[in-house]
Amino acid sequence: VSASKAEQTKNKILASAAELFNLQGYAGVSITEIMTATGLKKGGIYNYFSSKEELAIAAFDYAFDRVAKLQRNILREKKDAIERLLSLFDLYADFVDNPPIKGGCPLLNAAIDSDDTNPLLRDRVRLAMDSWQDLIRHIIKKGIQKGEIRVNISADEIATLIIVNLEGGIMMSKLYGDRVHLERSIEHLHNYLNDTLQLSTSRLE
Amino acid sequence: VSASKAEQTKNKILASAAELFNLQGYAGVSITEIMTATGLKKGGIYNYFSSKEELAIAAFDYAFDRVAKLQRNILREKKDAIERLLSLFDLYADFVDNPPIKGGCPLLNAAIDSDDTNPLLRDRVRLAMDSWQDLIRHIIKKGIQKGEIRVNISADEIATLIIVNLEGGIMMSKLYGDRVHLERSIEHLHNYLNDTLQLSTSRLE
Repeated sequence: VSASKAEQTKNKILASAAELFNLQGYAGVSITEIMTATGLKKGGIYNYFSSKEELAIAAFDYAFDRVAKLQRNILREKKDAIERLLSLFDLYADFVDNPPIKGGCPLLNAAIDSDDTNPLLRDRVRLAMDSWQDLIRHIIKKGIQKGEIRVNISADEIATLIIVNLEGGIMMSKLYGDRVHLERSIEHLHNYLNDTLQLSTSRLE
Repeated sequence: VSASKAEQTKNKILASAAELFNLQGYAGVSITEIMTATGLKKGGIYNYFSSKEELAIAAFDYAFDRVAKLQRNILREKKDAIERLLSLFDLYADFVDNPPIKGGCPLLNAAIDSDDTNPLLRDRVRLAMDSWQDLIRHIIKKGIQKGEIRVNISADEIATLIIVNLEGGIMMSKLYGDRVHLERSIEHLHNYLNDTLQLSTSRLE
C-alpha cells in the first residue's frame, strides 16, 4: 500500500466516522456501522486506529478542522474587526440546513456527548473550544489595537457570548427543524456587538 | 402488589433511568444498567415500560417535570414580570454544580441526543421546549398587561434568547467544569432584559 493510498483510506474512515459520530453520538456508533459506511473490514479500520475511542477523537479533530478551515477562509476576505466577527455568523447560520458535517456543529454535539462520561474526548473538545475562543479574542484585541473597537470591553466575555448564542441557537433550531431561533440569536449578536464594541454608539459616552 | 407499591416501583425506575439517560444519552444506557441501578430484574422493568424507547420518553418527561416544578415554585414567590424572569435564572445558575437531575439540563441533553436520530423522543423534547417558551411568553404578556413591561417587544424573540443563553451557557460551563461561562450569559440576560423590557430605560424614548 503506497503512502498516498494509505492516507486516502485513513481520510475515508475519518470522513465517515466524523459524520456518524456527529449524527449519533459516541455510544450510538458501532465499528460495524463504520465498516458498512467505508466498505472496509474491521482489520482495515484497526490498521489505522487502535480503538473506537482513538477513532472518535481523530474523527472529532477532523470535523473541527473542517469548521476551523471554513472560518479561516471567511476571515481572509475581511479586514475590519467587527466585520470579521459578523462574517463568522454567516457560516454558522448555515449549520441547521446545510452543515459542513451532517448532524450540525461537532463542538456542540461532542461537548454534550462527552462532558459527563468521556474525559478523553471531552479534553479534546475543550482544546477545540479554547482555539475558537482564542480566535475571537484575537480578532477583538487586534480591533482594539487598530482603533476599530473601544478599549473598555472584555474579550473573554464577548467570546463566551458569541459561542453561547450561536450554539444555543443551533440547538433550538435543530430541535424544531426551524431556522428562526438561530436567526434570532444571530440578529441579537449583531445588535449586541454593534452596541458594545463600536467606538461611536456607546450610551455611556 | 398494591397500587401504591406499584407506583413506588415505577417511580424508582423513572428516577434511575432519568439520571442515566441524562448522563449517558439514549444509546449510552442499557437495560442492564437500569436493572443494576434499580435492583430489579428485566421483567420487573418491562412490567411498567414495554421498551427502552418507551422508558426513555417517560424518563425524559419525569426529568422535565422536576425542572418545571422547580420553576413553578420559584415563580410563586415573585409578582413583578421582570423579577419573575430574572428569578428563573437563579434556578439555572445551579445546573452546572448542582443540577436537579445529575448530568445537567435534560432539555439540552435530550435535544442534542434526539434531533437527528430519535424522532419519538425529539417530539417529546419539542413539547417540553414549547411549554418552557409558553411560560416565558405568558410572563411577558402579563407584564405588558399590567404595565410592567413596554409594549413594543416580541415575546417570541425574548423567549428564544433566554433559552439560548441559558442552555448555551450550561453547555460551555459543563464542558469546562467552570461556572464562569454560564455566569456571563446570565449577566448578559440581566442587562439585556433590563435594557429591552423596562418602561423607563429605553434609549429610544
